[in-house]
Amino acid sequence: MVKRVVASAPGKIILFGEHAVVYGEPAVAVAIDRRARVIVEERGDFEVRISAPDLSLEAGFDLERVLSEDSFSFFEIPQRLKNVVRAVEVSLNACNLKRGLNIEINSDIPPSAGLGSSASVAVATVAAVGKCLTGDSWESEKVSKLAFEAEKIVHGAPSGIDNTISAYGGGIIFQQGKIERLDIGAQVSIVIGDTKVERSTKKLVSHVRSICEKYPLIGLPIIRLIGSLTLEGVERLKTGDFEGVGELMDINQGLLDALGVSHLSLSRLIFAAREAGAYGAKLSGAGGGGCMIALMSPENAKNVLEAIEMSGGRAVPTAFSMRGVTVESEE
Amino acid sequence: MVKRVVASAPGKIILFGEHAVVYGEPAVAVAIDRRARVIVEERGDFEVRISAPDLSLEAGFDLERVLSEDSFSFFEIPQRLKNVVRAVEVSLNACNLKRGLNIEINSDIPPSAGLGSSASVAVATVAAVGKCLTGDSWESEKVSKLAFEAEKIVHGAPSGIDNTISAYGGGIIFQQGKIERLDIGAQVSIVIGDTKVERSTKKLVSHVRSICEKYPLIGLPIIRLIGSLTLEGVERLKTGDFEGVGELMDINQGLLDALGVSHLSLSRLIFAAREAGAYGAKLSGAGGGGCMIALMSPENAKNVLEAIEMSGGRAVPTAFSMRGVTVESEE
Repeated sequence: MVKRVVASAPGKIILFGEHAVVYGEPAVAVAIDRRARVIVEERGDFEVRISAPDLSLEAGFDLERVLSEDSFSFFEIPQRLKNVVRAVEVSLNACNLKRGLNIEINSDIPPSAGLGSSASVAVATVAAVGKCLTGDSWESEKVSKLAFEAEKIVHGAPSGIDNTISAYGGGIIFQQGKIERLDIGAQVSIVIGDTKVERSTKKLVSHVRSICEKYPLIGLPIIRLIGSLTLEGVERLKTGDFEGVGELMDINQGLLDALGVSHLSLSRLIFAAREAGAYGAKLSGAGGGGCMIALMSPENAKNVLEAIEMSGGRAVPTAFSMRGVTVESEE
Repeated sequence: MVKRVVASAPGKIILFGEHAVVYGEPAVAVAIDRRARVIVEERGDFEVRISAPDLSLEAGFDLERVLSEDSFSFFEIPQRLKNVVRAVEVSLNACNLKRGLNIEINSDIPPSAGLGSSASVAVATVAAVGKCLTGDSWESEKVSKLAFEAEKIVHGAPSGIDNTISAYGGGIIFQQGKIERLDIGAQVSIVIGDTKVERSTKKLVSHVRSICEKYPLIGLPIIRLIGSLTLEGVERLKTGDFEGVGELMDINQGLLDALGVSHLSLSRLIFAAREAGAYGAKLSGAGGGGCMIALMSPENAKNVLEAIEMSGGRAVPTAFSMRGVTVESEE
């Protein structure tokens, strides 16, 4: 039995295919080198105490009193810690054990930005709890699956992209519920630009739906084109042709704009990033605000970062990462 | 013989299909209610004196000395009056007459903005000179043809869109050199937003070419989609469904962005116009700066105009116009 475990798992960005994925087209997501870290310690009683000092959040529950789908109604759990509670529950169930734990969450993945921050926390929590209680490092597949259960209960119907990529690292191609892993041929820098403009994913998805219904001969072919472009992007990712990847990102951005999901706040950061020498830039996720991403050579990262900040965005430097969930230390 | 003639002819905007028209797809242009006005008077000698007080430009040449393709090398003609000189020459040739004329040009069409200002001046000049020398009002077809000759000599290989629409008014569908007239079902307001950013049409056309060559399975389908969208737009123009026209303009804008011919200066004005209640907004012409256009109900025109000005554009209010070249007065 291990007394203290530190596990970490990466966030992700969607590189190609958001929105079109809803219509059965492929999408590509890649892990980034920003991670959630979870520290798990055994307590010796039946209390689970969760703290997220970054967010000034705390939660706790008593394993003797309840461990069921209803625990949220017995204990006051802040919204953003609910998936952690579920991750603990599914992990304990998987071990068929009841042990009190102290759990501390830290993350350098900006939350609520479509970067998979929630799934990363769930993945790291499952891995850390599993290791702490059994002494074994669970396989990525098992970790991903349990984290998916935790996400599912909290988020309704997640796609499975976020937990998969966070558990495995690297890239994935996601299409019609099938997830295929993707090796990326070389290293590249990424800057994420947060517009700080809030948006409703649901509204944006339904706007795309209305365009496709009203103009089926235009909207649906745009969706299909995003699919073709995504597959072209996959080929270029495999060979590390990031200039090509960037050009395809730019085209993808225009097609998303044609579907009505771009926003002036995104245009500002996107054009600024391209001007500053990025290979390409596009919105990432639902659009309508939210985040954009830019790809660039490492030597251009500073320029692009500054250009995004100068244009009113919050810039987050990162890079592709092949590293999935890891148990980083134990003592 | 008429001593003094005032003729006027409208400018135009491209509503759908720029860039794709180069690849054989249809484009739609419509006349606007901004016009060039040309006053022609007989002098009684063999001098032709041209003045454009708006532009503080003057030019003159002696019909006895030369009337040939070389007159530009004999007489110092400012670049922006060359098409007027040619329009006078082709009109005199068409009448088989040599008469000295005073010609005064005025225009409320912003020049060098893709609004067909040059063709409007040529069309109005031909009509005014024809009427002045023969007493007859030439048919639109003849005026358009002669103005096209004048434009051709000065501009190389014009498409014929500008002179046609300026001579006939209303709308046209242009495809592979064929021009079909288009009746527009109702009245609507337009605001043109000039980004004041200069661009090279040639560079933008060759950028689109490079996208289509590098990504034929993506670039060319985008071109074809702009073609389908243009035909859909034609149907909605005929029935006066300007909300639909606006939505299609928004989609067309995204597809142009996907081809790499948009610009932040355009995005700023386009999003501002939409936010202010326009039916739709897009770049018009080559892109990369230059002008955008927005369609709106007359009661929304002021809002949109102000929004474009607030976003750094020079806003020009206008409207569709069915009125082609007219000889407005004579004495």
